[in-house]
Amino acid sequence: MKTDNSKIKNVFKDMSFSPKEISIIENVFHKVTFKKGDLIIKVNDSVEYQYYTLDGCLRSFYTDEEGKEHTIQFAICDWWISDFTAFFSDSNAILNIETLRDSVLYKISKEDRELLYKEIPKIESFFRLKLERAFSAFQKRILSNISKPASERYMQFRKTYTNIERCVKNYHIASYLGITTESLSRIRKELASK
Amino acid sequence: MKTDNSKIKNVFKDMSFSPKEISIIENVFHKVTFKKGDLIIKVNDSVEYQYYTLDGCLRSFYTDEEGKEHTIQFAICDWWISDFTAFFSDSNAILNIETLRDSVLYKISKEDRELLYKEIPKIESFFRLKLERAFSAFQKRILSNISKPASERYMQFRKTYTNIERCVKNYHIASYLGITTESLSRIRKELASK
Repeated sequence: MKTDNSKIKNVFKDMSFSPKEISIIENVFHKVTFKKGDLIIKVNDSVEYQYYTLDGCLRSFYTDEEGKEHTIQFAICDWWISDFTAFFSDSNAILNIETLRDSVLYKISKEDRELLYKEIPKIESFFRLKLERAFSAFQKRILSNISKPASERYMQFRKTYTNIERCVKNYHIASYLGITTESLSRIRKELASK
Repeated sequence: MKTDNSKIKNVFKDMSFSPKEISIIENVFHKVTFKKGDLIIKVNDSVEYQYYTLDGCLRSFYTDEEGKEHTIQFAICDWWISDFTAFFSDSNAILNIETLRDSVLYKISKEDRELLYKEIPKIESFFRLKLERAFSAFQKRILSNISKPASERYMQFRKTYTNIERCVKNYHIASYLGITTESLSRIRKELASK
């Protein structure tokens, strides 16, 4: 059976699947496209999907009571994004997710994810490992915010999101690092002069 | 076959297992006891185990470059604890974990956890769900730190860790909430007078 399994190659890389499994996977991932500036999840939405970024750039952000934005994560090619707190706990969105340029994503619903886990247990392992890494990375970042200088956090940001700076505005980066855009400019100047 | 499966009842509650599965589980969870004040994980240790709290009270904390302690989590009866960032990413500990009173724990190693997942796939689902909840709770708490008043965060802490206040010192709670012990006293007085 010949199938177009580019979806599977993108998402699951070198994992191998039987023709029946391929057909199940093809049926639960749906390609969706968004224009730059679209809000794909809004605060208080019910959050039904998680998204795999095939192409594009997105960010999730939290807006505090004074209207200040805090960028939680970016997603570029091969990254997953959602309001995971809402997605995992069946509560409504506390984050917004916006596209920072035209984006092509694969979405999968909660129910279909459960179906995949049941039908293809190694996919549960795949997502469990992704989640362990995401948890580690998020906790490390919070601890960095407590104790590392902003210049070090900026360098870590550049390492984490290679080539992202073309797509995002300075205030996106500053709101990810928890600093002002003025501090970001100063850090860039200092690094450039080294 | 009659087995003492209290270990299983404690950790996995109402999940049912075959006699063969019970025997596997019994072999991978090991009971360990610690005295109040023991450091069960120290910064830079390699982190081989995650721990289930059968009885006692523990906390994990991060010490920043100025020597200030930041409590990441507490563990009371039925909670899991480890330096999960290190445990998941095969890096050395960045946290300390100490017992706040004599504690009885079950420990399971990384290798044995993988074995369990392979032999009893529903245990992988069990841990995946736990991790999703932990990720959600941690992200929610970080966002609360950004935007909620300390009094609200203190009330949330009391809800999360029922009856813990008998075991922990004021500076443990303050370092969990990111406030001073003086602010904690003020909040308690305000709440008591309402």
